[in-house]
Formats: sequence, structure tokens, C-alpha cells
Amino acid sequence: MSDNDNIFKKIMRGEIPSAKVYEDDDVYAFNDISPVAPTHILIIPKAPIDGLHELTDHDAELAGKLLVCASKLAKKLGLESHGYRCVINTGAEAGQSVPHLHLHLLAGRDFQWPPG
Amino acid sequence: MSDNDNIFKKIMRGEIPSAKVYEDDDVYAFNDISPVAPTHILIIPKAPIDGLHELTDHDAELAGKLLVCASKLAKKLGLESHGYRCVINTGAEAGQSVPHLHLHLLAGRDFQWPPG
Repeated sequence: MSDNDNIFKKIMRGEIPSAKVYEDDDVYAFNDISPVAPTHILIIPKAPIDGLHELTDHDAELAGKLLVCASKLAKKLGLESHGYRCVINTGAEAGQSVPHLHLHLLAGRDFQWPPG
Repeated sequence: MSDNDNIFKKIMRGEIPSAKVYEDDDVYAFNDISPVAPTHILIIPKAPIDGLHELTDHDAELAGKLLVCASKLAKKLGLESHGYRCVINTGAEAGQSVPHLHLHLLAGRDFQWPPG
């Protein structure tokens, strides 16, 4: 159960401006305000899901839409030629800073391994 | 279109041994042979999907099952208390070493930001 006042909900309600790059009935995507790569987009479900830990079997299609959105944006933005990395953090200890499920789409530079 | 001889397909066919942690009709999960965290599991679709770049709208549910699998494994293995990170690389330049879609489930240590 998400609270109604986290920053992503305010962004989706238009109460906080964001650089939106995509929106449909289920998904909202916008540029991260603290980018760590030339392309750094956050892709989130509109439904109030706090994080991966809340997913059940019934959420598979919605969760998959985040990945499909990443794939489509990568194509549209020309990110495929040099590759891209998708990251989802779950829990504050792993770097999840907002309690609303979000996928980081990162591209435009070389990436190191391990991933943080 | 995936080739039939990459290492993940051989693992799923049992031709190469793996430390399997989960399997159902759609998904196979096993320990990474080069772990970069105390828990490092690879979660892959059984269907021959080379990477995120191949996903279409029709694949949303299957793709989401990878994320649901990560969530369930994290619960089952007690990873939630300290958080976990999921990573999908697309393209060799971003670190995708096998041409079959795979999600890295990482846990058991602190994670840095940026993620590589």
C-alpha cells in the first residue's frame, strides 16, 4: 500500500513538474532528476505498487509492461546500438529511494560490472 | 531469434549442470557461476527471447513473470530484509554476455549508486 504523497504520485498528478517521455493507461515514464547516465529514465506503473516485493502472480502483465516500455523507448530513442541497462532496486538498503515501484532505464555510456 | 547452442539453452536442456533454484512452465532460475553478490540468481524465460530488445506488447505477461519470480524468490530466500537489486543488460556493450534474456537478482551485500 503506497502513501498518496510520495514524489512519484505527485509527479503523475501533475503537482510536481517532470520531463515526461511516455505515458499510457498503465505506465508513466520521465527523466530522472539526478541522472547517472546520459539517458536515465524512470518507468513506473500508475497503480500504487510500493516495489517488487508487493508483486503477485496477478501483477505479471502490468510488471511486464514496464520492461516492454523500456524496450520500446530504447528503440525509439536510438539506445540499442550501444546497449542499455535496466535496474530495479527493492528496499532502501538496495537503493530504492521512493516507495513506488520504478525501473531505471540507463544508456549512453559504458557500464561496469558488478552493477553497483 | 536465439541460436540453439548458447549456454542458457544448454543449461535448460540439462546438457550443462546448473544450481537450479526455481522452475515452472515459463521461467527457469539458477545461480550465476560468476556471482557478484552473496546471492546472485539468473532468471530467464524458457522461450527463446534474445533480450529486452525483442519484447513486444504480446510478451508483457511473460516478461513480468521474471519480475514476479524475482519477488517470490526474494521472499522465499529471506532477501527482503536487506533489500535486493534486479538488473537486465541489453546488448554486449551494456554487459549482456549471453544472447538470451536474463534478469540478475542480486542480494546479500550493500549496493552502490550508480549501478555500474
